[in-house]
Amino acid sequence: MKATIINIGDEILIGQIVNTNATWMAEKLNQSGIAVDRVLAIADTEKAIKEALDIALLNSKLIFITGGLGPTKDDITKKALAHYFEMEMAFHEPTFSNMQQLFAQYGKVVDDRYQVQAEMPVGAKIMINKAGTASGMWFEKNGSIVVAMPGVPREVKYLMTYEVLPNLKMQLEFPTIIHQTLNVTGKGETDLAEMLEDFEQKLPSNIKLAYLPNSMIGMVRLRLSAYGEDAIVLETQLDHYIRKLPPILGSLIFGEGKDTLEGVVGQMLLKRGYNLGTAESCTGGNIAHKITSVAGCSAYYESSVIAYSNAIKQDLLGVHTTTLEEHGAVSEQTVIEMARGTQKLLNVNCSIAVSGIAGPTGGSPEKPVGTIWIAVTENEKIYTKKLQLGKDRLQNIERTTTIALNLLRRFLLNDLS
Amino acid sequence: MKATIINIGDEILIGQIVNTNATWMAEKLNQSGIAVDRVLAIADTEKAIKEALDIALLNSKLIFITGGLGPTKDDITKKALAHYFEMEMAFHEPTFSNMQQLFAQYGKVVDDRYQVQAEMPVGAKIMINKAGTASGMWFEKNGSIVVAMPGVPREVKYLMTYEVLPNLKMQLEFPTIIHQTLNVTGKGETDLAEMLEDFEQKLPSNIKLAYLPNSMIGMVRLRLSAYGEDAIVLETQLDHYIRKLPPILGSLIFGEGKDTLEGVVGQMLLKRGYNLGTAESCTGGNIAHKITSVAGCSAYYESSVIAYSNAIKQDLLGVHTTTLEEHGAVSEQTVIEMARGTQKLLNVNCSIAVSGIAGPTGGSPEKPVGTIWIAVTENEKIYTKKLQLGKDRLQNIERTTTIALNLLRRFLLNDLS
Repeated sequence: MKATIINIGDEILIGQIVNTNATWMAEKLNQSGIAVDRVLAIADTEKAIKEALDIALLNSKLIFITGGLGPTKDDITKKALAHYFEMEMAFHEPTFSNMQQLFAQYGKVVDDRYQVQAEMPVGAKIMINKAGTASGMWFEKNGSIVVAMPGVPREVKYLMTYEVLPNLKMQLEFPTIIHQTLNVTGKGETDLAEMLEDFEQKLPSNIKLAYLPNSMIGMVRLRLSAYGEDAIVLETQLDHYIRKLPPILGSLIFGEGKDTLEGVVGQMLLKRGYNLGTAESCTGGNIAHKITSVAGCSAYYESSVIAYSNAIKQDLLGVHTTTLEEHGAVSEQTVIEMARGTQKLLNVNCSIAVSGIAGPTGGSPEKPVGTIWIAVTENEKIYTKKLQLGKDRLQNIERTTTIALNLLRRFLLNDLS
Repeated sequence: MKATIINIGDEILIGQIVNTNATWMAEKLNQSGIAVDRVLAIADTEKAIKEALDIALLNSKLIFITGGLGPTKDDITKKALAHYFEMEMAFHEPTFSNMQQLFAQYGKVVDDRYQVQAEMPVGAKIMINKAGTASGMWFEKNGSIVVAMPGVPREVKYLMTYEVLPNLKMQLEFPTIIHQTLNVTGKGETDLAEMLEDFEQKLPSNIKLAYLPNSMIGMVRLRLSAYGEDAIVLETQLDHYIRKLPPILGSLIFGEGKDTLEGVVGQMLLKRGYNLGTAESCTGGNIAHKITSVAGCSAYYESSVIAYSNAIKQDLLGVHTTTLEEHGAVSEQTVIEMARGTQKLLNVNCSIAVSGIAGPTGGSPEKPVGTIWIAVTENEKIYTKKLQLGKDRLQNIERTTTIALNLLRRFLLNDLS
């Protein structure tokens, strides 16, 4: 089952926005067993829309269009589609009611500019869009299906999830595809591929392994997909193979599905009745930012000190002047004293302390840019690690954040000596 | 001058990566006077590449291809293009030398897998890629130009900037386009459009205003572009119109071009010989993270306290128990004491203090989710502000960060009473 995605909008063609709709839709369609053959981004003109449909219908039985359904004069997708499928326009009451309901939530009445949005092509199946004012449309011609949605990502997600995909599944036969994802940190894609070479070779032909790396933060998602007919059979089969991964990858795996490292660490702290504080120099608050991006973190997250200056390392965290003089701010001794000082100052069980040279300048021959020391503590126990990263300041900050959180996770698992 | 961008790669069609190459290229091409007509993402197959070229050459005289030039077996763009343009392949010495030089930087020699990358189509103009091992290619046929580059964003940027665009400018006549961007925060796109309605109506037809909003962080970039022939004339003309914006928008404008709010605030602190510390509750370190993402910030950034718990607000920052009891942690009185406590504790001229309910839960009828108090200080002066934001935790954190930094900026400008 081959599909074409058509994204309409000058904002893509002038480089104003990134086409995230195409990415999201391609992922969802693939997960549903619909392979995407082409993604086509085109201008807001009737001519461009007609040409794109001609091209798409030559190759694909399924065409998914986004964009150009708003009330402004640029948005001409609806008119172009009505012409293309030779349909008249007429007032569509359910679309108008939906609009009235959405406006009422903000204490407003539907104003004249929006009236045109209730005009819909007669003969198309209209899909009410509870996430916005423009309805979706479903056209069929010569055995092909053409679906049109607004361009707002939230509205695309709503219509795809609650209208388009369920309707397609009722009307067409799809292969069953199920997925499981494991989230990994500590090794890059190349190393993981080497570790999993044997595992991959032994996979049956209906199971595929995908590596989805995020090199900025230093994580890889491993997605195992099983293709077949019977969901129960596939689930059993997928379970069988997914269970082979932990013995190979061990504690490189930190979670599955939508688990985040900061969420996993938070749950571990919560279970142990621990609280956490951080002392950050070069990460400048990014570790605290990640931890506090988890709703409910106040149950285990205490506070942090961003100790950028030596004075604060000394005054607040109790790092000794002699330590800074003899070993420097970027040293094992300093992060040990920062981590211990944090435990004392914030009265916490666990602490993370980081000091390093994020770059792009500030290095020396002995301590080049990218030299970073981390210490993590669990009550009286402590573990330290030295990193040697690159010269990209933001990447150094992001990767150090991941490595530090992961170090605490592994330390709490007694996975570090 | 119409162009088509073709991005080759299954990773786009399965939704694994976002097509940022297309966005970057579209922006650069538009800025150079080349309008992009279509963006086409296609599979890694010779058939798909041939079909895409057929489609593109019907409409466009300029075609920019990325992807599929690596050493792995999936990467078949080069072979497909050689077939399409009926060219033989031959060893290309400059490509091999470039590869050797790149490998030598890492103390490596070119291994066998990479040898194939030095085979290039005879008759194409080869563009050496100093950012990677795969050279770019330039084909011409029937008055059309087809350029092929690797898919790695860094390499696309290198080849476009140093080879493709300069070569195009030598060979073809382009309109001259110049741009100036102002960065704005404090009002959304709709409000700005209202404020600038008169300004926009009076713009001559060769000058366009674009709104580039980032709603997550609460900023809008305003880009003014002038189209014509003579760069000097256009610059004078653009200057004339850009100078009309500050009187209309005032201190909503915080910078131009690549200026960031945290960078602008940093420069203001530096000029005044001030240093800064922050006390963050609900933003959880994100303000400190933004400030420390600027290289060289240690010249003015001192340190921060992430005071998530009330105990730390009291013990470290000296917020009074009675203040917390009478007004609560999310109150004007508390942020005032946090801001003053930060000045004292960290010995800084300026401080930013934030306390609020980031959500999605934790609100009350009097203080719903999204209630946030901010205080900024400059020596003995202090200014406070209450925000009422939405329910999205991450958006609340990001927007509060922007608003807090902007508040300090305007306070230092004496723009707040």
